[in-house]
Amino acid sequence: MGFGLRYAILGTGALGGFYGARLQRAGAEVHYLLRSDYTQVREQGLVIESPDGDFALPQVFAYDQVTAMPPCEVVVLALKTTQNHLLKHLLPPVLANDGVVLVLQNGLGVEAQAAEIVGGDRVLGGLCFLCANKAGPGHIRHLDYKKIAIGEYRADGSAGGISERMGAIAQDFEAAGIPIEQAADLVLARWKKLVWNIPFNGLSVILNATTDAMMADNQALTLTTQLMQEVTQGAAAQGRTVPAEFLQTMLDHTAAMKPYRTSMKIDYDERRPLEVEAMYGAPLRAAAAAGVALPRIETLYQQLKFLDRQNRAGDRP
Amino acid sequence: MGFGLRYAILGTGALGGFYGARLQRAGAEVHYLLRSDYTQVREQGLVIESPDGDFALPQVFAYDQVTAMPPCEVVVLALKTTQNHLLKHLLPPVLANDGVVLVLQNGLGVEAQAAEIVGGDRVLGGLCFLCANKAGPGHIRHLDYKKIAIGEYRADGSAGGISERMGAIAQDFEAAGIPIEQAADLVLARWKKLVWNIPFNGLSVILNATTDAMMADNQALTLTTQLMQEVTQGAAAQGRTVPAEFLQTMLDHTAAMKPYRTSMKIDYDERRPLEVEAMYGAPLRAAAAAGVALPRIETLYQQLKFLDRQNRAGDRP
Repeated sequence: MGFGLRYAILGTGALGGFYGARLQRAGAEVHYLLRSDYTQVREQGLVIESPDGDFALPQVFAYDQVTAMPPCEVVVLALKTTQNHLLKHLLPPVLANDGVVLVLQNGLGVEAQAAEIVGGDRVLGGLCFLCANKAGPGHIRHLDYKKIAIGEYRADGSAGGISERMGAIAQDFEAAGIPIEQAADLVLARWKKLVWNIPFNGLSVILNATTDAMMADNQALTLTTQLMQEVTQGAAAQGRTVPAEFLQTMLDHTAAMKPYRTSMKIDYDERRPLEVEAMYGAPLRAAAAAGVALPRIETLYQQLKFLDRQNRAGDRP
Repeated sequence: MGFGLRYAILGTGALGGFYGARLQRAGAEVHYLLRSDYTQVREQGLVIESPDGDFALPQVFAYDQVTAMPPCEVVVLALKTTQNHLLKHLLPPVLANDGVVLVLQNGLGVEAQAAEIVGGDRVLGGLCFLCANKAGPGHIRHLDYKKIAIGEYRADGSAGGISERMGAIAQDFEAAGIPIEQAADLVLARWKKLVWNIPFNGLSVILNATTDAMMADNQALTLTTQLMQEVTQGAAAQGRTVPAEFLQTMLDHTAAMKPYRTSMKIDYDERRPLEVEAMYGAPLRAAAAAGVALPRIETLYQQLKFLDRQNRAGDRP
C-alpha cells in the first residue's frame, strides 16, 4: 500500500515535526516549513525520541519560505493559532489544486480562518491527542499518546459526515502508525477536546501547576470538573451533546497520566503568545451567540488575557 | 474630653499597631499583645510613619501573653482571621466584664467566631479602610485612608442599629483623628467592603498584580466589575441592597489610588496563610444558603485555596 498524497507541514514544531517524521519514515513525501530550526534541520534532519522507538531522518525536505515548496495534496497546518494572520501568505503557494488543508490546531472554529483563504470545501479539521515537546532544534521528544481525530469542515457548523478524502488521509497516517478517528461531526469533536483543554491548559498557567498537582487538590479538581461542565453547556448551545461519562473518562485519563506540563504552560514559560482566543474566546463567543453564559470559562479567559499581556511585556518577576 | 475606655489590641501588626498608636497618642490607655515584635516593642515602643505626620511612642504596654494583660473594656481583634482558632484562649482573660470585642477583621461572619466565646451581645464588628504595612519590627508605615465602619453584631443576621457603646467607641477613635462611620447594618457594611476586597485581593494574588495594572487592563477590569456584581448578588441573597453607583465609586477610588499591593498579596509574598475562608468561603456559603450561586467568586475561591496550599508547601518557584 503506497502513499498517494504529498504532504506539507506548515510549522515544524513538536507536533508538526512528529507527525511529519512518522509519515516520512513510513514512506510518504513530506515537505517541512521551518523558521528558527531551518538551518539545523536542512543540514541534520529530524530526530524523534519516542516510547514507540527513537529514530532519525538525516535528510528531509526543509524550507524557510513557503514559495519554495512544491504543491502538496495535504497541507498540514501545525502552526499555533496565534500565527494565523500569516495564513493568507502561507496557504496559497503550497496547496495543490485538488489539495486540502488539514488544520491540526487547538480551539474552536479555527478551520474558518483557513477556509476564508482556500474555500470551505478544501478544509479538514484535526484534533491531536499528543504529548510531545521540543528537546532542541530539530529534536522532538514524544512522550505519550498520538491519536488524531479528523473531520470535514462545514461553514454552517453542520456535521460533515465521513468523506472519501478523509479515508485516504487516514490510510496514510495509519500506515505511519498514527491512529486516526474519522469524526462525522468536527464541531462535536472540537468541543470534546475542549473538555480537557479548557480546564487544564488555562489552570496550568494561572495556578503554575502540572496536571498531577491539579488532580491532587480538592478545590482545583472541583473547579476543573465545573469548567468541564461549562464546556458541555457550550457544546449544547451549538446543539452538540457531550455525554456526562466523557468528563469522568477525561479525569480518569488525566489521573493515570504522567505529570504533564500543558502546551499553554510551555508557551507561557517560554514567553510565547498564548492561544487564548482559539481555546477560550471562540467557545465563549459561540456560546454567547446562542445566549449561553459560561462564567467560569470567561473568568479564565480574562485572567489568561491579562497574564499573556504581562508575560510578553516582560513584567513577570 | 477624656478617654473612659481601656483598650487591648490583639495582634499588633500594621493595622492593630496603627490604630492602637493613634488611640494612645490621643491619650487612651492601650495594651498591645505581640508575638514576633514583642521584645523590640517592649524596649523601643512603636514608630508610625504617616502622611498625617510621623510619630513615635517610646513606651507602650507590651505583652507576649494575654494572661498578663489587664481586663479591657474594648478588645480590638486585629489578628488575621487565619488565627481565629486561638480566640478561645485569647479573649476570656482580657475582656472586662462590661467590655466588648471589636472585630477589625476582613470577610463575612467573622464576628460569629468571637461571639461563640464571649456571647453575641458583647461583639461589635469593624471594617477598616486602611492602607498600611509593616516597615520593620514595631515600625508601621501608614500609606493612605484610615476610616473604620463599626456596627453591632446580631447572631440572626439582622441590622443591630446604632447603640450607645458604638457612640462611646466612636468618640475615642474620633478624638484620635480616626473617622468612624456608625453602621446601623453591619452585614450590609461587610458586603460593601467585599465589593472591593473580593476582586482586588484575590486577583492581586492570582494575577501577580497591583491595583493599577488591573485597572489598566480591559479584561482584568471587566472581570473585576463582574466580580463586584456577583458580590451585590450575594448581598441581595442576604436581603441587602448595594447600590449600583457604589461599584463605580469603588472603581473610581481605585483608579485614583496609588498603585497598591493588597493585604492578601503581601500575605502571599511572605508565605503567610491567606484569608480565603473569611473573604471568599463565608460569602459563598452565605449566598449558597439562600440558593444563589456566585460562579466567578467561586472560581477565585478555588484558585486561591490551591495557590495558598502550594505557596505554604514551598512549591512556588
